[in-house]
Amino acid sequence: MGTTAMSPAEFEQALRAKGACYHIHHPFHRAMHEGRASREQIRGWVANRYYYQRNIPTKDAAILANCPDRTVRRQWLRRILEQDGAQEGEGGIEAWLRLAEAVGLERGQVLSEELVLPGVRFAVDAYVDFARRASWQEAAGSSLTELFAPQIHQSRLDGWPRHYPWIEPGGYDYFRRRLGEARRDAGHGLRIVLEHCRSRESQERMLEILQFKLDVLWSLLDALSMAYELGRPPYHTVTAERVWHRGIAP
Amino acid sequence: MGTTAMSPAEFEQALRAKGACYHIHHPFHRAMHEGRASREQIRGWVANRYYYQRNIPTKDAAILANCPDRTVRRQWLRRILEQDGAQEGEGGIEAWLRLAEAVGLERGQVLSEELVLPGVRFAVDAYVDFARRASWQEAAGSSLTELFAPQIHQSRLDGWPRHYPWIEPGGYDYFRRRLGEARRDAGHGLRIVLEHCRSRESQERMLEILQFKLDVLWSLLDALSMAYELGRPPYHTVTAERVWHRGIAP
Repeated sequence: MGTTAMSPAEFEQALRAKGACYHIHHPFHRAMHEGRASREQIRGWVANRYYYQRNIPTKDAAILANCPDRTVRRQWLRRILEQDGAQEGEGGIEAWLRLAEAVGLERGQVLSEELVLPGVRFAVDAYVDFARRASWQEAAGSSLTELFAPQIHQSRLDGWPRHYPWIEPGGYDYFRRRLGEARRDAGHGLRIVLEHCRSRESQERMLEILQFKLDVLWSLLDALSMAYELGRPPYHTVTAERVWHRGIAP
Repeated sequence: MGTTAMSPAEFEQALRAKGACYHIHHPFHRAMHEGRASREQIRGWVANRYYYQRNIPTKDAAILANCPDRTVRRQWLRRILEQDGAQEGEGGIEAWLRLAEAVGLERGQVLSEELVLPGVRFAVDAYVDFARRASWQEAAGSSLTELFAPQIHQSRLDGWPRHYPWIEPGGYDYFRRRLGEARRDAGHGLRIVLEHCRSRESQERMLEILQFKLDVLWSLLDALSMAYELGRPPYHTVTAERVWHRGIAP
């Protein structure tokens, strides 16, 4: 590991190389992609990933709250608007709920978060907590898994309708809208990070921060694997019921 | 679920009944208890559980910081003193590091936290974050897994020397000291909680908080199972190296 700062191009390349650890390579995700996932597994993924979706505006609001730069705030604000929607029935979270219905989940069950696994909750909460407590530039950097997102959304749009004909096609709207949004958002995030990280030390730290975010996404699928693939949901040795907590936000 | 408040005795019984979900029942813990754990599994557990140990004083300091009651602070402070020790070479964390050495780990490797799995980090961080943001009474309640701790420590003292003769006996000091401390601490925590939770609503919430803490402990062992039992450490599909982050505290 060098001590001289990388050039912006080298640094960008180092960030993009982290894509090797993207959750597209997780066995649970591979199974979904290759058509090997059961209905229950797809539903479990959608219901758990909802917890991620609904926390994204909270994460972005935390970044806004720590950012004194009006130009950046103007741009970053769009993420919240797009995820929440300008009014009832619009926005990314709503599109995710339509995906949930398209895979056969009840909207109320998803909103209750009763299916959200503790490991998923802890990973997502770590992401939000980081955005609250880090500088806005570092928190912006933790969003850079968006560099790899268009690929994962496209792969779902390509493979799922063929593998899972039982999913209502209207459900795919979320993936389609994020194709463009993620590209634009990643571009903005990348400019912030390239501008901010001029020393080798700050570049190495930013790579660690991106790794942290990759860990969040991988860990989320680990929890799903335990519960929906390996037959080891929490407390399976003592009860068949779901007994884990449904959120105890202070 | 009733709406009338439980009597203190009924409420205490409801809290104790949560012991059914204690991590003593987790397959990874059962394997350790029954002598079926490999050296690598024991070492993985000790190195990861170190992250929990070293965060306990931070969690307790957060409770102190939120507590305006001098009498409670005087009592709660003892936890920090005992875990940190009054001077170098003393205290619970030091005893844990001696356990690490007794199972064949290098102290430096444990302190570097390079073996700490993302899922373990997220679960422990969730516990500390809760203590920072909740009321001191609710955070005190989240410590109540101590009600079940003497049993787990005793089981290790009973079984491990027989199953794992390769572990240096000096390493068991941590479990021995916590036998008494955990009993005293749980008594104090329980008094706070019984005093604080007089309505049915606050009692139900406290049961959820205790469940959250049980989820933290179970989730920690889930991460260990993935990495050390099921052959699925993070990023195993793309690399044999450890690439996860070693902490990016803001």
